[in-house]
Amino acid sequence: MATLPERATHQRTRAFNQQLVLRAIYDRNEVSRAELARLTGLTRTSVSNLVGELLDDRLVEETGRGPSTGGKQPIMLRVRADGRHLIGLDLGESAFSGAIVDLRGNIVRRVSVPLEGRDGDDALQLVYSLIDSLVSGNGASPLLGIGIGAPGLIDSRTGDVRWAVNLAWERLPLGQLVEERFGVPVVVANDSQAAAVAELTFGSASGRPENLIVVRVGRGIGAGIILNGQLFHGDGAGAGEIGHTIYGPGRERCRCGRIGCLETVASMRAMVALAGARDPSVTDEQSLVASLARGDKTARSVVVHAGSMLGVAIASLIGTLNVDRVLLVGPAVALGDPWLGAVKTRARANALPLLADETRIEMGAGHDDVVLLGASGLLMTHELGLSLAR
Amino acid sequence: MATLPERATHQRTRAFNQQLVLRAIYDRNEVSRAELARLTGLTRTSVSNLVGELLDDRLVEETGRGPSTGGKQPIMLRVRADGRHLIGLDLGESAFSGAIVDLRGNIVRRVSVPLEGRDGDDALQLVYSLIDSLVSGNGASPLLGIGIGAPGLIDSRTGDVRWAVNLAWERLPLGQLVEERFGVPVVVANDSQAAAVAELTFGSASGRPENLIVVRVGRGIGAGIILNGQLFHGDGAGAGEIGHTIYGPGRERCRCGRIGCLETVASMRAMVALAGARDPSVTDEQSLVASLARGDKTARSVVVHAGSMLGVAIASLIGTLNVDRVLLVGPAVALGDPWLGAVKTRARANALPLLADETRIEMGAGHDDVVLLGASGLLMTHELGLSLAR
Repeated sequence: MATLPERATHQRTRAFNQQLVLRAIYDRNEVSRAELARLTGLTRTSVSNLVGELLDDRLVEETGRGPSTGGKQPIMLRVRADGRHLIGLDLGESAFSGAIVDLRGNIVRRVSVPLEGRDGDDALQLVYSLIDSLVSGNGASPLLGIGIGAPGLIDSRTGDVRWAVNLAWERLPLGQLVEERFGVPVVVANDSQAAAVAELTFGSASGRPENLIVVRVGRGIGAGIILNGQLFHGDGAGAGEIGHTIYGPGRERCRCGRIGCLETVASMRAMVALAGARDPSVTDEQSLVASLARGDKTARSVVVHAGSMLGVAIASLIGTLNVDRVLLVGPAVALGDPWLGAVKTRARANALPLLADETRIEMGAGHDDVVLLGASGLLMTHELGLSLAR
Repeated sequence: MATLPERATHQRTRAFNQQLVLRAIYDRNEVSRAELARLTGLTRTSVSNLVGELLDDRLVEETGRGPSTGGKQPIMLRVRADGRHLIGLDLGESAFSGAIVDLRGNIVRRVSVPLEGRDGDDALQLVYSLIDSLVSGNGASPLLGIGIGAPGLIDSRTGDVRWAVNLAWERLPLGQLVEERFGVPVVVANDSQAAAVAELTFGSASGRPENLIVVRVGRGIGAGIILNGQLFHGDGAGAGEIGHTIYGPGRERCRCGRIGCLETVASMRAMVALAGARDPSVTDEQSLVASLARGDKTARSVVVHAGSMLGVAIASLIGTLNVDRVLLVGPAVALGDPWLGAVKTRARANALPLLADETRIEMGAGHDDVVLLGASGLLMTHELGLSLAR
């Protein structure tokens, strides 16, 4: 065998073992070198060398003596939550939010800027200035990278925004642009997919199910699909793009130009428009939620109808994938039980009862930071092989 | 460490390496021991020992001297196509078919028995007698096992038929019953899932795509979903159960008791009923196909409408999974272009154009034996780790 592949293999093995050790420390929270050797199957010498590098890198710290298991008390190791920091962004519908996140998913600092209808290059400049403000204020540790949750059709393998109608972005190499400007690794994911990752790792989907569908309903609708413990992207990275699927006859024209997309009958935008046409006091999401809370019949019938339309789509997800857990997240969660009830009723009616009976449809943790934390989690997995968890 | 797990690990490693060697020979068709060592990364001694066992087992044979690569001409090895045989069954809608299949997926002998409305225990007895007739006529090599493609909701992990309305089977432990009776390993899979495996391995889906959806349309409708090169089962083994999903309003009552399932608007059964109500000459699938071929307008409008309804379901599959290849198989393939055209038109209209443009919807190989070959393929993978291919 030639020398080059041999050496490359050595380096790969070393990098692989480095990640193996880091992950074992991270997942165990606190652990001794002896335990690490047992957990990873590496020799004590290898473990000591690899830990030495992680200590030098300030990714890991010694925390003192742990309980003895026979001999003298071992020195315990822990991943330094502040050994690196990440920037997570949520390019939301009405505002762009960003946060500095530590290696345990704690939010250190947060910034939010209203979008105010900006799109195209203006919206891109807003992304830059948001990152600028987060970078500049940061004192301490090295920046690991930037994770971005964006609306629309995203190719997360390349970081390209294939199409985001709301922002008038088409074939925008967002990941590459941000990477070149800030000189750190960047991961871009669809907002629903980021939300799915966040719900899987520290959300309400307890027990880390193998398969999980997270449906995000706000002004748009999208799904993040976790299969066999992994985010499923599809051939063109568009898996979960249910918002622009037409499930039945419709009359309203969608932002995408077609008529009858799920977004035109089941999104918050559709509900606000429909309720507003019959009740002038409903002008935005807040007033719709307030009207519903007051027990207004118009608001209720609009919300129930929209929930039922979403139920048709979810029945199709159940029939296609037979996944036992479906979580609903996003602004529509504020609509509460009348909406959830309508979704569940229709999904159960339209899917094969044998399958629907096994599927739990629930509200997700509903955390405001779910998209930026999910994007941060994807970056951590990408860069350090760590699976963000509290 | 205790002795038992140590030994178990050794045995596991040996079995794993045995499969590794067998698979390498199978996939390469003909290969020398030296090449095997290179392909598998095992030592020459290990390879020689493992090959020795495979020769003793009559799974592998020596075929003579191959081309020299420097030294003397090496002895070539090949998997004996007739080293084992399998029984593959297709529990079809109007007939149960079975075949003896060799290790290369060649059909050695074939039997078919009309179902004639039998269900419940009568249908089960028919399965037994079909296998009996295949077993008794077989002379030569050992029987590796039995692969069964069955309609309905099948848990292929346990071999249980959870629900097959056509056969009035509910919670029938088919796999276990056949296994106990014939004393060989048995795999049971849903017919659409078996068809998907067959299309992936030796069908029209050239280049072995990573992701593939096979939709089978006959009296019923079901899909087999291949994701990341593997059959995706879902949490309750019901993935692909689209036939009993309701995609829109409907009037007809389904075999399952509900109203408006996809089967009631898009299956061959639905087409025959609808066309027959308007044209008494249409009484079954053949006469519908004949009427369509004659250019009959009623037949055409019924077929186009049914194709369009299937297109709605396929648009949803595309939106959910963004899979680039969708193959249509089963009796409806006989309807040809008018039907395929309607399916494609509606699927493209109802899915996001950006995704739909990338998806090819085509007729599958349409092989009559696709279900029994797929079931045989699953058994081979299960028992020998081999992926059936020609």
